[in-house]
Amino acid sequence: MTRAGTRDDVTVGILGGMGPLATADFYGKIVRATPASRDQEHLRVVMWADPSVPDRTEALTVDGPDPTPWLIRGAHRLEAMGAEIIATPCNTAHAFLPRVRESIRARIVDMIDETVGEICRLHADVRTVGVLASAGTLQAGLYHRGLERAGLQVVAPDEFTQRTQVSAAIRMVKAGNTGPECRELLAAGAESLARRGAQAVVAGCTEFPLILDRAAKKIPVIDPTAVLARAVIRTAQEMRGRGAVLAGR
Amino acid sequence: MTRAGTRDDVTVGILGGMGPLATADFYGKIVRATPASRDQEHLRVVMWADPSVPDRTEALTVDGPDPTPWLIRGAHRLEAMGAEIIATPCNTAHAFLPRVRESIRARIVDMIDETVGEICRLHADVRTVGVLASAGTLQAGLYHRGLERAGLQVVAPDEFTQRTQVSAAIRMVKAGNTGPECRELLAAGAESLARRGAQAVVAGCTEFPLILDRAAKKIPVIDPTAVLARAVIRTAQEMRGRGAVLAGR
Repeated sequence: MTRAGTRDDVTVGILGGMGPLATADFYGKIVRATPASRDQEHLRVVMWADPSVPDRTEALTVDGPDPTPWLIRGAHRLEAMGAEIIATPCNTAHAFLPRVRESIRARIVDMIDETVGEICRLHADVRTVGVLASAGTLQAGLYHRGLERAGLQVVAPDEFTQRTQVSAAIRMVKAGNTGPECRELLAAGAESLARRGAQAVVAGCTEFPLILDRAAKKIPVIDPTAVLARAVIRTAQEMRGRGAVLAGR
Repeated sequence: MTRAGTRDDVTVGILGGMGPLATADFYGKIVRATPASRDQEHLRVVMWADPSVPDRTEALTVDGPDPTPWLIRGAHRLEAMGAEIIATPCNTAHAFLPRVRESIRARIVDMIDETVGEICRLHADVRTVGVLASAGTLQAGLYHRGLERAGLQVVAPDEFTQRTQVSAAIRMVKAGNTGPECRELLAAGAESLARRGAQAVVAGCTEFPLILDRAAKKIPVIDPTAVLARAVIRTAQEMRGRGAVLAGR
């Protein structure tokens, strides 16, 4: 038992709001993956969910406003709350994290790096990976870089499929629509990648795990939000020097 | 579009972690109930989820440590992040909120008051309300006081049912178990209240909406977490002087 005013634990910061539903999903995944039998065994988590951060894909594809000042401001707020580990449940935002990292002392756990690492570790038979992601994530090459460096082939949707299915599905989830129409759009995107040789698909936009788990059953789907949640717990455990085993892994 | 460093919106603070899964559920309910078609239309939300807060029920029933200093500390952290509205998705913690309220400037939206108000407004035909809650919430009379003041009859489980079904179900959810066994325990508790005349049941522990929605179909269930989420959105809209209508209401 801690006393108020003392700290015997690591504080995890969620730099969220991009989008809000994906942020709620991420926090839920941290809680569910934490080995705990009562409240007091869970991690202390602080969250800054500022949905006014300018659209990350627009910044990368059509010269929209740079979200970096918003991200740095959020990271500073989290540090002020005591966060020593910061995680951002938005793949596209990772294009802007290098400058955020330079501005803070907390350790940023990188969702893209962790996901590429998990694919190499747990899916060693996979040679070709499909990437479903925002147009911004694709244009910035966030997954392409890491996967190709690991010797994997990468397939992504053609421009028409991206616009009419993948980006359309992202907009629907952000508008609160996670129904069958939206699920089918994204499942069709996943299947088109499977036809082009993908042996696994990265659900590389944090809106996708909310709709892809049930829709795409023909091909393994890697959920970077869940990978990030486990990486955060592991990092927190390392920081506090405990050796507990992850639940469900 | 705001600029970094400026604020054109209200900041909502979640004083959470009691328990963590219920906190994730609450934030998800805020997001889903917000009328928004894109990220930028959602509320700015900050969260302090400190699961090390001493057990609220133990403080109320067996002279356990007083959680008030932890709650005040969390509320101060949220205010430091800019929170003007604070909500606590833990029914039992409401027994300690009067002293928290005295210590802060932010407005606390009270889950118990809002829930009693919604029952009176939306369930005007109901004369007898069943309360499923922690032993601490029952002993502090949190729901009893408001419901009886509104002229309603209240039924709660007997001591044996409370211990073997209701409190047992709370512990199971807090340990991450939301499976059928847990759902059946709580559904049995709800049905025993219906047999004693309850025409509606308050799922008066924030762990319960996670397991009661599907389990209890024979009697209307009121979800205080969802009531609180809608009240927070309404309060934020009032504060910023906009008149948008709640989604799904």
